[in-house]
Amino acid sequence: MRAAILTVGTEILFGQTVNTNAAFLSKELQNLGLNVMYHYTVGDNPGRLKELLAIAYRDCDLIIATGGLGPTQDDLTKEVICEYFEDSLVEFPQESEKLKAHFKKAGYRWTENNIKQAFFPKTATILRNSVGTAPGFYLKKDKKMIAALPGPPREMKRMFSEELVPLITAESREAIYYKIIRTFGIGESSLETLLMPLIDGQTDPTVATYAKEGECSLRITSKRETLEEAKDEVDRMIDKVNRLVGQYIYSYDDEDLNQVVGKLLLEKGISFSCCESCTGGMLAQAITEVPGISAVFDRGLVTYSKEAKMSELGVKAEVIEEFTAESPQVCAEMVDGLKRKTGSDLCVSITGIAGPEDLSEERPAGLAYIGINYKDETRVITSKHRNVSRHWNRNYMLLKMLNEIYLTIK
Amino acid sequence: MRAAILTVGTEILFGQTVNTNAAFLSKELQNLGLNVMYHYTVGDNPGRLKELLAIAYRDCDLIIATGGLGPTQDDLTKEVICEYFEDSLVEFPQESEKLKAHFKKAGYRWTENNIKQAFFPKTATILRNSVGTAPGFYLKKDKKMIAALPGPPREMKRMFSEELVPLITAESREAIYYKIIRTFGIGESSLETLLMPLIDGQTDPTVATYAKEGECSLRITSKRETLEEAKDEVDRMIDKVNRLVGQYIYSYDDEDLNQVVGKLLLEKGISFSCCESCTGGMLAQAITEVPGISAVFDRGLVTYSKEAKMSELGVKAEVIEEFTAESPQVCAEMVDGLKRKTGSDLCVSITGIAGPEDLSEERPAGLAYIGINYKDETRVITSKHRNVSRHWNRNYMLLKMLNEIYLTIK
Repeated sequence: MRAAILTVGTEILFGQTVNTNAAFLSKELQNLGLNVMYHYTVGDNPGRLKELLAIAYRDCDLIIATGGLGPTQDDLTKEVICEYFEDSLVEFPQESEKLKAHFKKAGYRWTENNIKQAFFPKTATILRNSVGTAPGFYLKKDKKMIAALPGPPREMKRMFSEELVPLITAESREAIYYKIIRTFGIGESSLETLLMPLIDGQTDPTVATYAKEGECSLRITSKRETLEEAKDEVDRMIDKVNRLVGQYIYSYDDEDLNQVVGKLLLEKGISFSCCESCTGGMLAQAITEVPGISAVFDRGLVTYSKEAKMSELGVKAEVIEEFTAESPQVCAEMVDGLKRKTGSDLCVSITGIAGPEDLSEERPAGLAYIGINYKDETRVITSKHRNVSRHWNRNYMLLKMLNEIYLTIK
Repeated sequence: MRAAILTVGTEILFGQTVNTNAAFLSKELQNLGLNVMYHYTVGDNPGRLKELLAIAYRDCDLIIATGGLGPTQDDLTKEVICEYFEDSLVEFPQESEKLKAHFKKAGYRWTENNIKQAFFPKTATILRNSVGTAPGFYLKKDKKMIAALPGPPREMKRMFSEELVPLITAESREAIYYKIIRTFGIGESSLETLLMPLIDGQTDPTVATYAKEGECSLRITSKRETLEEAKDEVDRMIDKVNRLVGQYIYSYDDEDLNQVVGKLLLEKGISFSCCESCTGGMLAQAITEVPGISAVFDRGLVTYSKEAKMSELGVKAEVIEEFTAESPQVCAEMVDGLKRKTGSDLCVSITGIAGPEDLSEERPAGLAYIGINYKDETRVITSKHRNVSRHWNRNYMLLKMLNEIYLTIK
């Protein structure tokens, strides 16, 4: 099936809002096995909306419109869709009752123009909004489907998953299953090269790579007659992928690396502390994004100045002087000092050059040393990632630390 | 002038990439005084690209196409534009020389199919790519303009600002000037209400509010015959805005709050340390995003456990027991302990409930206490921001801390 995504909203044309709805829907529809042909974004002009609807109707089986449904808007989407699908807006009594009850409960004054929100195309199926007030709707005519969803991403996503997906899959004769695998430490083209025996000439399941900030993901998808068959195919393919690139994989369920590491620490009851120089608290922040992490996370020290490295961690002035503050030697002293201070099962340190300026040719921005003390053994790993941006250098250092922790404790 | 933005790229239709290019261009064109009528995104189908080009050509004065120019792509954009604008692709010798020189320098092997990258519409103006290899181009026909820019955001943004903006403004008889003002501590609707005397019935300059993550911005724009006139108008309006909402403004130049605070600390030579519980290192991270901050930033302590609060900062066990770890009393002890330990001119502490779960009805997620010690005086501020998301609660706490620092030292 072919699909088009139609966004109604001047805030997108003004550039005040990035169209994340279109990206979300594209990905989800893709995963359901549909081909997304277009994204269109228009403002509040019914003529233009109708013209684009005509193209989408001609070329696609499914049109998803987002936005233009809320109480402050002029119900443009509804009216244009009615006109195009030769339907008419009528009051849905159940919806007007809900609406009036909502007004009463919230203590808002009811005014008659609000009733418009309970009007929908006569032949429409109402899509329930479980996290907001404006419902969406779904229409089918001559094997063509259209759905109108609200604009706020939280409401749109929930309505799509809970209400629309079952209606779409009912139209499809295939069951689709997919898994997203997350990797770190290998570039997209190298990953693709290693997986070429599986990717080359693939029909079903399919393996696709895509780059993310500093890391790389794999999507494994199968379309079969039943969901069980599709799942089996995906699982079999994951085994093959594992044999080729298993050492780079940290999640088979599209989880972020900090969440994976935080959950592992909690699961295994490994107490954890860290000390950071160049990343300035990014590791502590990433770990504390995991709810409940206080059960194992003791403390993080951002020892930015030399004095802080010495007084907090007992790094010796001579070592800093001989090797510089951004050296493997200082990195090892940092993590050993942290271990002495906290006694945490796992201690991690980092020192390096965030940039954007290189300190010298041998000491470029992006060079950092990561110290790991686990089961009383200390090792230091070198991290290199040259980028003109301080932001991207530090982001890579964070991922590298998280990955080293993952490899150490998994 | 009316504008359309045309994005060519299957990665956007697959939902792998969010279309941030369209948002950037929309905002910039809006600021230049153009009305953006559509965003279109299409894949690699020349027929569909041509059809949408036809609509944009009919309705708009300027079409900006992004993507489909790179070496690995099939030069779709160029060919379709040529076909539509009745031009033909020819080799631009200067571009092919540059290309060959680039291959030589990078040590790549030259193959003849690469020459296609040096082909452009005969009547085109080449747009230089200062941060990548693929140049863009600009065409004008019958008062209609089209520009083709590369897809990677970094290259696209630079080419737009450096090469295309002068060509667009040359076509306009008006000079446009604008300033973006950043505020914290006031919601969008309250800000709009306070500014209503200026916004109501405005013609030129215009004042527009827009919400950002946890804060709010103002755009003040003037279109006049000369740039000087426009600048004067904007400056006059900024004075008026200042009188109404000055206490909420932290930047008149669209700077982020952490950059403003970091620069102020550097400028005034105020040494700084912080200790964080619920934000887990976010403040230390935000401050260390500022290049050169090591001149004033001493250290950050993420004292997550009670033991860490006691041993690192000398918080007394009795105080934790009597008032809980997330209390104004512990917050004050934290910042006083940090001051004793570091002697930094400015010390900041935070403790609170990140969520997502409330600890109790009186201790909801989002409640935090911020301690400030400056010139040996300690005060504690309460921060409240209820959100179901741990991420958004912590983000608000960070902005609140940065804003309190700003108000303290400015």
